[in-house]
Amino acid sequence: MADINEQSVKIKTIAIIGGTGKEGRGLAYRWCKAGYKVIIGSRQLEKAIAAVDEIRGLHGFQGEVHGMDNLEAVAAGDLIVITIPYAAHRPMLETIKPGLSGKILVDVTVPLVPPKVTKVQMPPAGSAALEAQEIMGDSAQVVSAFQNISYENLLHEEKVECDILVCGKTKAAREAVLGLIKDAGLVGWDAGPLENSVVVEGLTSILIGINKQYGVQSSGIKITGVSRQD
Amino acid sequence: MADINEQSVKIKTIAIIGGTGKEGRGLAYRWCKAGYKVIIGSRQLEKAIAAVDEIRGLHGFQGEVHGMDNLEAVAAGDLIVITIPYAAHRPMLETIKPGLSGKILVDVTVPLVPPKVTKVQMPPAGSAALEAQEIMGDSAQVVSAFQNISYENLLHEEKVECDILVCGKTKAAREAVLGLIKDAGLVGWDAGPLENSVVVEGLTSILIGINKQYGVQSSGIKITGVSRQD
Repeated sequence: MADINEQSVKIKTIAIIGGTGKEGRGLAYRWCKAGYKVIIGSRQLEKAIAAVDEIRGLHGFQGEVHGMDNLEAVAAGDLIVITIPYAAHRPMLETIKPGLSGKILVDVTVPLVPPKVTKVQMPPAGSAALEAQEIMGDSAQVVSAFQNISYENLLHEEKVECDILVCGKTKAAREAVLGLIKDAGLVGWDAGPLENSVVVEGLTSILIGINKQYGVQSSGIKITGVSRQD
Repeated sequence: MADINEQSVKIKTIAIIGGTGKEGRGLAYRWCKAGYKVIIGSRQLEKAIAAVDEIRGLHGFQGEVHGMDNLEAVAAGDLIVITIPYAAHRPMLETIKPGLSGKILVDVTVPLVPPKVTKVQMPPAGSAALEAQEIMGDSAQVVSAFQNISYENLLHEEKVECDILVCGKTKAAREAVLGLIKDAGLVGWDAGPLENSVVVEGLTSILIGINKQYGVQSSGIKITGVSRQD
């Protein structure tokens, strides 16, 4: 993982595995606009291509986006984002692991356990991101991010009110992802080591509970007591 | 715990164990002003009395506050708040348990493990609050709250920017504590079952890390996407 630990990580192409889902499409839309080449990965190429057509048709879309099957997408990406339901997390990671060597894997997964999705229930590894790192071993560096944001907030150009907390083993990898967040027009904060991902993943259950109890669509969080550019 | 599960919990006297610390003094100041009778508990009566003198001397203080030793304080309180360092958590809870039967115990403890206080490290029970409930068994109902707020924000009358997330087994107990939060001039949100306290306690480590990295004194969090009275 020598590359990841260097001060700057050059990312030109971002592959989004599970990119046909709402979250993936929202991230793709924003990163394309920021000038990144985005690859939408899916188990079925046709689905990836359909998602690409949809992204290209979004109001204000500009940039470059392509559809590939997951393994091709992983090979093409300088950095890989995984946005899939928790049930598919382990098998998908085991499938794509060979192509991830030396790359950053951004894990967006929240380990929700239906039907009690408002109750924090972590896997034995401690969190989905820690489980991903356990599966990856030394071959890729996992960074956790984007778990608290609602996809509705990504697919248009309005300002997003929810901040993004970024956890990962090294500061260099966290900073690479913080750069992508800024380029997507979002606000991110360095939330420390990967062990802290339990907080960020679990926060999603609390926010789902707040949505239900207070009758709102997409509650989020914002860090206070800091200086902000906005 | 029949009383706690009823719709309304009448609280007139609040006992703060470890109330001689900064956090306890800040809460006492605000609850006194709101008309609650507050008891500051300490292992040594003289220390409790010294803290009471200090609270009474704060700018704008009004209300009723008394110092007692911990066991007397627990007996006098309709609701008990515990604000002590994690190292003293288990022995203190075992000491005061006999007096807590049928009462709500508000646990403010964050299980920080020096020197790595910016890394989330939970006890085997899952969180300090879950550990407290394990110790209490059926004798008291634990509610977790106030872990993310800085004491500096409590000891004056300015608006506090950090929201408070409240976890606990029953909605009735959470609502009783949400009422106290509102009366203290703060904003609280129902964050669901006690299992979710891992998120709120762990968030403190993330906020300490943000303070260090971004050079601020007291970062906090605010829930977004909800309607607020302020």
